Amino acid sequence: MVPQGATPTFIAQLERRWRRGKFLCVGLDTDLTRLPQSFAGYPSPAAAVVAYNSAIVDATHDLVCAYKPNAAYYEALGADYWPALSGTITYIKAHYPDIPIILDAKRGDIGATNAGYVGAIFDLLGVDATTVHPYFGQEALRPFLERRDKGIIVMGSNSNAGAAEFQDQIMHRIGEPLYRYVARTVAEEWNTFGNCLVTVGATFPEKVARVREVVGDMPLLILGVGTQGGDLAVTVRHGRDSRGWGMIINASRSVLYASGGDDYQDAARRAALALDQAIAAALRDG
Amino acid sequence: MVPQGATPTFIAQLERRWRRGKFLCVGLDTDLTRLPQSFAGYPSPAAAVVAYNSAIVDATHDLVCAYKPNAAYYEALGADYWPALSGTITYIKAHYPDIPIILDAKRGDIGATNAGYVGAIFDLLGVDATTVHPYFGQEALRPFLERRDKGIIVMGSNSNAGAAEFQDQIMHRIGEPLYRYVARTVAEEWNTFGNCLVTVGATFPEKVARVREVVGDMPLLILGVGTQGGDLAVTVRHGRDSRGWGMIINASRSVLYASGGDDYQDAARRAALALDQAIAAALRDG
Repeated sequence: MVPQGATPTFIAQLERRWRRGKFLCVGLDTDLTRLPQSFAGYPSPAAAVVAYNSAIVDATHDLVCAYKPNAAYYEALGADYWPALSGTITYIKAHYPDIPIILDAKRGDIGATNAGYVGAIFDLLGVDATTVHPYFGQEALRPFLERRDKGIIVMGSNSNAGAAEFQDQIMHRIGEPLYRYVARTVAEEWNTFGNCLVTVGATFPEKVARVREVVGDMPLLILGVGTQGGDLAVTVRHGRDSRGWGMIINASRSVLYASGGDDYQDAARRAALALDQAIAAALRDG
Repeated sequence: MVPQGATPTFIAQLERRWRRGKFLCVGLDTDLTRLPQSFAGYPSPAAAVVAYNSAIVDATHDLVCAYKPNAAYYEALGADYWPALSGTITYIKAHYPDIPIILDAKRGDIGATNAGYVGAIFDLLGVDATTVHPYFGQEALRPFLERRDKGIIVMGSNSNAGAAEFQDQIMHRIGEPLYRYVARTVAEEWNTFGNCLVTVGATFPEKVARVREVVGDMPLLILGVGTQGGDLAVTVRHGRDSRGWGMIINASRSVLYASGGDDYQDAARRAALALDQAIAAALRDG
């Protein structure tokens, strides 16, 4: 479907992976202080992080639909931010060019300023998708939304314990909570180019269903599976689209730090495989 | 009031400047492509940006209450992100240690992840305040809010044309728009340590008044003066607190690029002085 030589869109890349039954996304939330002892000898924090991420990717690449580095863990490295992040992205693109990369940056500013983030994320780092905050509205996010080839993942419902504070407030005009109003607005008004997604938190599975009801087949980035305790089978049943696709199911720490020791690669693969099989079972049985 | 040897809090730093009648904040939204021709010869983008910012700061330091670099313009430099930003901050801290620095980063993730941003922004870069998105709620932002010495500036009402899309939606429970509900919640529930602020957009002056009504004397970061066209006198009258203080009035491009040529320092000073005098006049006349 994609013309030879053209770069496939983020959505097209995802659909290729979904067709192969892969829905898991491994979050590369790589924290220098949690790496095995053997990583202490690297010449720089960036080198250690890139080496660890590369090993995790090697161990899991056939089980995933995407990788998702979270910018906060790289920014925490200060001067090593850029080399750690760009090194990780370069490794994945070189070895597994079919796997899309989501930079979980949760950016969101006014339009002219967003152009700076868009250039850094899509043109310099060259990732395939990123996450954004909805608070400034569609007009502000246009520099993101206009990138038709990229995935723009808008915060809808989140997985943290206190997400309800604003997200569950009922909007007077439409009588539904903010998270669902945001999801509906993205699906109905922002998604002109078919490049939008919204997040849902697996820690609140009923919200996954409530979001799916209003977004049609627009894909969901499902957060909070694994360490955060979301129920995977219920989430999959609620989250899938009309084709049984439409989900990027993220697990970060439960794969990345499945072992704290030198068997981290085997442990990460086992953890990813267990999730992959649980997703497949939920899709088959539900 | 500040014990000798201790670093004053962001709020204490601001109050010192307000006492001297300084309310202007210059936004260092420094775009490499907008620097005068003479900056083409610098050995790196970071060196050019730091030199330009240093010259702007030298020309305006006695007129401001704060400086505010916006992270997006530095991230746009890719590998030069960190040296450009940290170089700018180091220059200001070395030459004008009494002027607080706000990193306008508009971050916001779940709690464990925010710790990475907090470390980078407050401990590595060492700025005095930062901006955050409210969407994930107080629980997620705790790593920011717990930094009592720093300023945590929460997005409330914004200056962009499309900000109303979500921010003006009426919350059913309380019968007021989201932007005001966020501002009220920050003032009443998040501001335990007296280190919170909210943003207001000068492009919607009536919203400045509506926010001031519900936040008491909590300070406001006022955005959109200058290039974005906000009415300064009305904004000042609506925005000041019970002491006639409580405002950080930001102008970015109208000062930074007041001239496109080699008289950029004089032009920036003239633009900053005009704003300083307009603020003083509004406070005196209103």
